[in-house]
Amino acid sequence: MSSSAGTRNSILLSEYLLSRLEQLNVPVIQGVPGDYSLGLLSQFLDHHAKSGSKQNHGINGKAPEWIGNANELNATYSADGLARVLGPQRPSVVVTTMGVGELSAANGIAGCYSERIPVIHIVGTPTSSAQEHGLLLHHTLGDHKFVAFGQIARQITAAQLDFALLKREGRMQLMEKDSEGTGEDAARELDRILEVCVRQALPVYIALPSDLVHFPLPASCKHRLTEQSLQTGFSPNKADSEAYVLRVITDKVTNAKCPVILVDACTLRHNVVKETRALVASSGLPIFTTPMGKTAVDESDANPQYGGVYIGSISSPEVKEVIEEKADLIIAIGTLQSDFNTGNFSYRTRRESTIELHSDRICVAFATYEGVRMKGLLPKLTDALKKHGRQRLEKTEELLRVARRIPTFNNKLPTPQEELSTFTHEQIGAMGGSQSVTSSIISQAYLWPRVGQFLRPGDRVIGETGTSAFGLMEVRFPRDAQFLAQVLWGSIGWSCPATLGVSLGMRELTKQGDAAAKQGRTILFIGDGSLQLTLQEIGTMIRQGLTPLIFVLNNDGYEIERQIHGAEASYNDIQPYNHSLLLDLLRPPPNYRRPTNPSHASDPEMSKTAYHATHTKAELHALLKDEEFNKADKCTLVEVFMPRGDAPAALRRQAEMSSSTNA
Amino acid sequence: MSSSAGTRNSILLSEYLLSRLEQLNVPVIQGVPGDYSLGLLSQFLDHHAKSGSKQNHGINGKAPEWIGNANELNATYSADGLARVLGPQRPSVVVTTMGVGELSAANGIAGCYSERIPVIHIVGTPTSSAQEHGLLLHHTLGDHKFVAFGQIARQITAAQLDFALLKREGRMQLMEKDSEGTGEDAARELDRILEVCVRQALPVYIALPSDLVHFPLPASCKHRLTEQSLQTGFSPNKADSEAYVLRVITDKVTNAKCPVILVDACTLRHNVVKETRALVASSGLPIFTTPMGKTAVDESDANPQYGGVYIGSISSPEVKEVIEEKADLIIAIGTLQSDFNTGNFSYRTRRESTIELHSDRICVAFATYEGVRMKGLLPKLTDALKKHGRQRLEKTEELLRVARRIPTFNNKLPTPQEELSTFTHEQIGAMGGSQSVTSSIISQAYLWPRVGQFLRPGDRVIGETGTSAFGLMEVRFPRDAQFLAQVLWGSIGWSCPATLGVSLGMRELTKQGDAAAKQGRTILFIGDGSLQLTLQEIGTMIRQGLTPLIFVLNNDGYEIERQIHGAEASYNDIQPYNHSLLLDLLRPPPNYRRPTNPSHASDPEMSKTAYHATHTKAELHALLKDEEFNKADKCTLVEVFMPRGDAPAALRRQAEMSSSTNA
Repeated sequence: MSSSAGTRNSILLSEYLLSRLEQLNVPVIQGVPGDYSLGLLSQFLDHHAKSGSKQNHGINGKAPEWIGNANELNATYSADGLARVLGPQRPSVVVTTMGVGELSAANGIAGCYSERIPVIHIVGTPTSSAQEHGLLLHHTLGDHKFVAFGQIARQITAAQLDFALLKREGRMQLMEKDSEGTGEDAARELDRILEVCVRQALPVYIALPSDLVHFPLPASCKHRLTEQSLQTGFSPNKADSEAYVLRVITDKVTNAKCPVILVDACTLRHNVVKETRALVASSGLPIFTTPMGKTAVDESDANPQYGGVYIGSISSPEVKEVIEEKADLIIAIGTLQSDFNTGNFSYRTRRESTIELHSDRICVAFATYEGVRMKGLLPKLTDALKKHGRQRLEKTEELLRVARRIPTFNNKLPTPQEELSTFTHEQIGAMGGSQSVTSSIISQAYLWPRVGQFLRPGDRVIGETGTSAFGLMEVRFPRDAQFLAQVLWGSIGWSCPATLGVSLGMRELTKQGDAAAKQGRTILFIGDGSLQLTLQEIGTMIRQGLTPLIFVLNNDGYEIERQIHGAEASYNDIQPYNHSLLLDLLRPPPNYRRPTNPSHASDPEMSKTAYHATHTKAELHALLKDEEFNKADKCTLVEVFMPRGDAPAALRRQAEMSSSTNA
Repeated sequence: MSSSAGTRNSILLSEYLLSRLEQLNVPVIQGVPGDYSLGLLSQFLDHHAKSGSKQNHGINGKAPEWIGNANELNATYSADGLARVLGPQRPSVVVTTMGVGELSAANGIAGCYSERIPVIHIVGTPTSSAQEHGLLLHHTLGDHKFVAFGQIARQITAAQLDFALLKREGRMQLMEKDSEGTGEDAARELDRILEVCVRQALPVYIALPSDLVHFPLPASCKHRLTEQSLQTGFSPNKADSEAYVLRVITDKVTNAKCPVILVDACTLRHNVVKETRALVASSGLPIFTTPMGKTAVDESDANPQYGGVYIGSISSPEVKEVIEEKADLIIAIGTLQSDFNTGNFSYRTRRESTIELHSDRICVAFATYEGVRMKGLLPKLTDALKKHGRQRLEKTEELLRVARRIPTFNNKLPTPQEELSTFTHEQIGAMGGSQSVTSSIISQAYLWPRVGQFLRPGDRVIGETGTSAFGLMEVRFPRDAQFLAQVLWGSIGWSCPATLGVSLGMRELTKQGDAAAKQGRTILFIGDGSLQLTLQEIGTMIRQGLTPLIFVLNNDGYEIERQIHGAEASYNDIQPYNHSLLLDLLRPPPNYRRPTNPSHASDPEMSKTAYHATHTKAELHALLKDEEFNKADKCTLVEVFMPRGDAPAALRRQAEMSSSTNA
């Protein structure tokens, strides 16, 4: 069936899908081609080529662009990073091929489920008739069945749609001599899936047989596209229950001596960042964040209400003191109490003095108010707390004088004594004595505040789970900067491909005129161990002309594992790489001549690349001050040589606790 | 709980597991460490260290060695390759961590299910009590549940065992003040799982909570280890049904004018290679193989009965003629009729003249004899057909004179005219004219017979799905050489890490005195597109001192996809790499000094490496003749520059058919 199938009024299923993706402002589609998805990919190219013309059913006339990744797992990690930058109402899209492709993507999709990231996973499958006949095709389990992959998807996505099943149920049939089908159900089901993805901020799964790519949906579906927009927002709260909860909360705040706000993951995931910032501004209350809520609110000097990061017993003593001893009411927004987000469940807060605002319910002390959503409640709370905002702000500034004594709070470099205290005598000896440690070696204690001084407004900073993410938690970020990490799912290797997605997101936001994105840089911190899992995705960054700054902390192996168990065990060792060659490997050799191919005409220009090795504080300091380097106009790899056995303070504490939890 | 738990007579669960793996002759355990599996990995190291001592419960006193991979998917691909080399009775083992690690491994495990490869996947999970309490731990889906991952494993493994569930059911309880548990069920279940893996040649899944690594099994389990060996073989056939089937088959053979044997995948997978070779020798019948059965029987000059590869309509006309027109009886051993194994289901054989021998049943024409297994039947058939073997051999030689006319059959280089005929006029023009094509350009038509001439006895040759595997199908292999490809599952990127497993397998076989393995080399053929997905595993090969020859066919993108759909479409393009840097990237820089660490003392010495670029026939020819190169004593990468748009004849024909199947 060619793409010219259907009557003048019909619309191909793939066209319908692409138009909906356009309406959702999807800028790019990522993945790896496979023979069951090639037909769909061809439709993407066609659709992209005629974007903006009359044949285009999208709203903004900007069709998504195809980005080929180095492998499928990397594609999902990149999709994850992209969705985090574009915000909760703009899902990412990944296309893979049945079996081999989709299972390679499984870890990345599950990560999006765990971390609440909206990703649409479209899988190209064999023709519906090949599936009905149970043909023993390649990319199958050799059992003539096609159900296993959908069963797997059910475990790691919020909703699933297999068009082969719709067809088998008779809900997609060609009428009038192959010209137009009964496809209202197909369109309706597709819309439902897309709405679940965006509204719940969770991944969804779509299996599309290669023959149905060209299935002609009837004219009614074409109208549906323009007349029935996707319902991606939550419905408003019921007035009576909302008003009741609002009164309960404002009473609590009024009666409390020291109420504080704690901003967590779902603030970002469920689209209440603006509402939360408004509440902070109007209420004058002190705010803290968890690791997963970090940078949801302004933590720069410009915000006198910011108190730091609360991670239970891992927190700085000054933060612990405020939250656990002074505060008598905690308004926790978008709470997600996982082990790494709570200092291994070491919160010392009392439920009777905690209010939790969730996307689907509000909890006040021991009472749960189901169906009252924070999205609707927050603006009302903002209004209600405006009245005494100014008085509260004064009290907040008074209170936070304590928290502001935290050395890391202002990205202050450690004194020699502080730096030495992070090592054992044996370690100091092995590194050449205390003089060497404080004058030259790049310690964790030195690195992170120095990084904090380096950051500038608008930067997006990705931290790999491990040394990097734990180190970044102790850094105070400038205005409009964003911290990204996979604190809950914690899949090793995530951050490198996620950096591709973040860079693509920054490019998209910049195109749309976002000033912070235009000013900001994409910056990755990753260890030498983690980098090995997914390093090839840097090639895609170069191919796309993207210019992230990639800091590879080379401490000779899996340091987070060493901190937890087996400090000297060989299973925590890795093959050492010569990172100076990585960027040059991932681009064409100097004499390379690209084959003449019209399809390359629209390719972006490849990035220039640069590699820097830093062995000492002085080298790192000079580089971070370098004007050329700070432009971030190349894809840049900075290898930071750091001693083995060293770790940020928060990671040391977490590792001790994880170790005993696992015993 | 420390490893000193338990009484003198008890045995730790991890010790029991490791002893069983030793009894199964598992040489290495592969994977990536994660905090939920670190305790288990420590036990591996301990067990390995005391291997051979009295404390060791294994039979051969050779404990498996830990090999850390670059990522989990690669670990499973390597395990797959290893199991293919060691044969069906020696499973591979992969260890990952819950959620993130095991899902990254899912595609590789599913591939083993599809292709019938025995792999034991052990997943380190959180403590049984953390799971019972539903703690919101890292590496979970954030839903307080731990069931999703087991549900996924059910879809892609033959059997599953979660010790956390056994514990919850009260089947693993500590008695006598923490010293010895009720663990007979645990040992029995574990044995069952291992038996399923080996007997069915399928992957299995074991979830082991970090606390139960040190669970003390009672003394009875210690005795079980030595007194009750694992039942990994099939029980013999029932005498009456076997005798009946034998008579039916021998009658058919006696009455046939031209019976032939067709050797397929399950000959290798279900451990009847020796039996099949004996049948071939005794019967004197002509033999052909399918792509998946290739090299199960000797196809060298020394075997006058070998007729070639049958792939339905993709076969050479001479092979087609014998199988489809001359043969009036086909004895198909270990049949697996998938699309890529049958020329897209284009067999022209008749069921009434086909006998299928399977691992669990025999089919003669339209009759199925359930429960009669080829393993027991084959030796009897060999005896029964011995009588007229010599006469049949004469007829076979006569018959195969036809098949032996096939140009590729003797790895004969193409004539200039034959080579030119594989290109269109446009392609020849673009490559600089016919003179340039025949004299210098490395075409597919030239490459594969040249590779055939290069191979020597004992070589193991891995072909990536695509150009490489289809090209190798047309090569005649020397004695004791093995062809390995993922013909059914066909996951892009599989072959590079599989090469690690194959090399490890060759090392193991050589240690055991296998002469063919000692003589043979490990040789990979992979495309530039496929290599990108998994290239980091070459670092593990270097780290392990392995010396494969890696041929990277650089034809500028995904050629197999181009052949199927979108010859000029941008989604089939890739980022070009500078492959000359790859090996040097994946080893330490010249000035690298390894940290002093006692755990490194037993590390193998890293391989030397070498890179060669070949742009012309002359360059490739010279290299393949080079004595130093032929030693294969370095980890070597040969980049073979080939024109885009070129493909082996078999792939062209398969691609045309796949393209229309997908429409």
